[in-house]
Amino acid sequence: MPYTTSSSSPFLQACAGQVPSRKPIWLMRQAGRILPAYRQLRSQYQSVSELFDSPELASRITLMPVEQLGVDAAILFTDLVTPLKALGVHYRYQPGPVLERPIRHRSDMQTLTARSLDASLNHVLETVRRVRAGLPPEVALIGYAGAPFTLAAWLVEGQATRDLSVLRRLLFCNPVLAHELLERLAVLAAEFLQAQIEAGAQAVQLFDTSVGMLGPVHFREFALPYVCRVFEQLDTAGVPRIYFPLAAPHLLPWLPPSGADVLSLDWRTPLDTLYARLDPAFPLQGNLDPCALFAPVAQLDQAIDAVLASAADRPHIFNLGHGVLPDTPLAQVRRLVERVHNSGTGAAGNQTPELSGDAAHG
Amino acid sequence: MPYTTSSSSPFLQACAGQVPSRKPIWLMRQAGRILPAYRQLRSQYQSVSELFDSPELASRITLMPVEQLGVDAAILFTDLVTPLKALGVHYRYQPGPVLERPIRHRSDMQTLTARSLDASLNHVLETVRRVRAGLPPEVALIGYAGAPFTLAAWLVEGQATRDLSVLRRLLFCNPVLAHELLERLAVLAAEFLQAQIEAGAQAVQLFDTSVGMLGPVHFREFALPYVCRVFEQLDTAGVPRIYFPLAAPHLLPWLPPSGADVLSLDWRTPLDTLYARLDPAFPLQGNLDPCALFAPVAQLDQAIDAVLASAADRPHIFNLGHGVLPDTPLAQVRRLVERVHNSGTGAAGNQTPELSGDAAHG
Repeated sequence: MPYTTSSSSPFLQACAGQVPSRKPIWLMRQAGRILPAYRQLRSQYQSVSELFDSPELASRITLMPVEQLGVDAAILFTDLVTPLKALGVHYRYQPGPVLERPIRHRSDMQTLTARSLDASLNHVLETVRRVRAGLPPEVALIGYAGAPFTLAAWLVEGQATRDLSVLRRLLFCNPVLAHELLERLAVLAAEFLQAQIEAGAQAVQLFDTSVGMLGPVHFREFALPYVCRVFEQLDTAGVPRIYFPLAAPHLLPWLPPSGADVLSLDWRTPLDTLYARLDPAFPLQGNLDPCALFAPVAQLDQAIDAVLASAADRPHIFNLGHGVLPDTPLAQVRRLVERVHNSGTGAAGNQTPELSGDAAHG
Repeated sequence: MPYTTSSSSPFLQACAGQVPSRKPIWLMRQAGRILPAYRQLRSQYQSVSELFDSPELASRITLMPVEQLGVDAAILFTDLVTPLKALGVHYRYQPGPVLERPIRHRSDMQTLTARSLDASLNHVLETVRRVRAGLPPEVALIGYAGAPFTLAAWLVEGQATRDLSVLRRLLFCNPVLAHELLERLAVLAAEFLQAQIEAGAQAVQLFDTSVGMLGPVHFREFALPYVCRVFEQLDTAGVPRIYFPLAAPHLLPWLPPSGADVLSLDWRTPLDTLYARLDPAFPLQGNLDPCALFAPVAQLDQAIDAVLASAADRPHIFNLGHGVLPDTPLAQVRRLVERVHNSGTGAAGNQTPELSGDAAHG
């Protein structure tokens, strides 16, 4: 059922298809290296996994950007691969996750165990509880997980790769095994998000960062049905469900997936082209190019205004098109948040529409 | 001016918008690791650059797939970054190219020199001459270069990166410098291709493997105009000009670029969706997913037939959606070439259209 709310949170209001007086903004990867307080904390620990695994540290880090940037939502500080722990998967950061035993053949499936979420992921749920207790009521907490196809990419590739050719070969060579794996990952992602909601998450986002490698036929066979399954499982949870497919403009004809309340876009697709064919109450999230935050302020403002203009008066959650880059100047991030917040008042935004139409759309 | 030909080469005929009785096929990266003869030769040299730099070896390698696979075109065995040598750029293979001094600031531009093509790239032109002398008349030789934006990606990033964030930041921070660099690279690519044509190349392809990272506004400012400029320079050269933008389905509204005679697609976009809005005589090239070559033969055949069906009776050069993967089984590649060649006769192809419509389109 579509998400509705009477919350005072502009983020949740926008997720429900409303246009709040203050436009909400949060940034993917906002809880991390752009913040000096995070870098200072990080330097005291050898591996980032120590931060992910400690509810005390992870909750502090999750709250940092709310306090220091004034964003309208907190995003849980954890990793996309975290839920794989519930399958008994071991990995180390070098510096990205590298799995000890990738899943390539049917026999590898035996290495996956079915551990309870409580036993394997309770630290994440405890982080959720702590963050929620520390957030003001108008700031929402977003839980998240990798989408089933993207989790499968990590499981099969074993590490970040450029073309996912091991997984894509599996789809051709052993589709039965691929479906079995995706089934399990869909169940896992749904359970993990449900547990995050019960612990206090007020919205959930499925990150599908690998899905853009698929053509439409494989997308409709191996990715989309599992996203829909996760969202269906959360249908009565009463929180908005956000889907973020990265680098997937060719898959937009099949999006948003059934069950999604919000679709998040990267910078490849101007928001207005998608709004044009959506129900007027369907919210989009996005999509400033993270690289725009390195521009001189005049160009940054122009790029921000172009995104604002492309959303016009439709329900919109401002965000980047992908994660904020680690060395982004903090002052520029603050300028972004401020400009978006002021945009509803007419103080910024559509001043020079004839210019912003030509600007980098972000 | 549009390309026309009276050649007996099915590849050149298709490039001219004809539908030859035998459907032409060649494969990106066909001259390389899939061939045992190549691997045997490669094992005798420490660096792949020794193979690129020797006209004797590079011409032998270029000819190998023509002899051993029966493809309809030879693609010059050289690297995408090769033309950068004419700017005095130094790089080493580790195992992909890594530049000694990437271009990041205006002061770095001084490190670029203007060497004559003869002095810096004569070995490539000599390779072209030798290959051309060794090819039967019905097999065409394709010359190539990186498109200006992709060459800029190498120059600025200094190596293969996943998100091109250094170059993309430069577009926002110093567009004037970016344009200067792209100007130079467009002149270089045009001169290099012109020299290849004079040495015997009968077609040229611009590989734009990095362009998919751009949103439409940046594409139209920083990539498309320079592709058009290269093709315009070759307007009277009398050879077909092929443009291959990788992972760029969102840029298709602006494609094919002016001056292109053929557009090459990856597996993200079914050929028929593009044919539908093109002039009936405009040829497409592509677009089997290279991973399909690992499938059991029934599924491979189905994927091949789906691509054939999506081209229907339009001018079409069969190819992969990107380079053939190094460990692809040779027997499967041979099966592909044979099936495509037989498709015109009705011996293969549209036998089970109701199935192939559902198959992975490649």
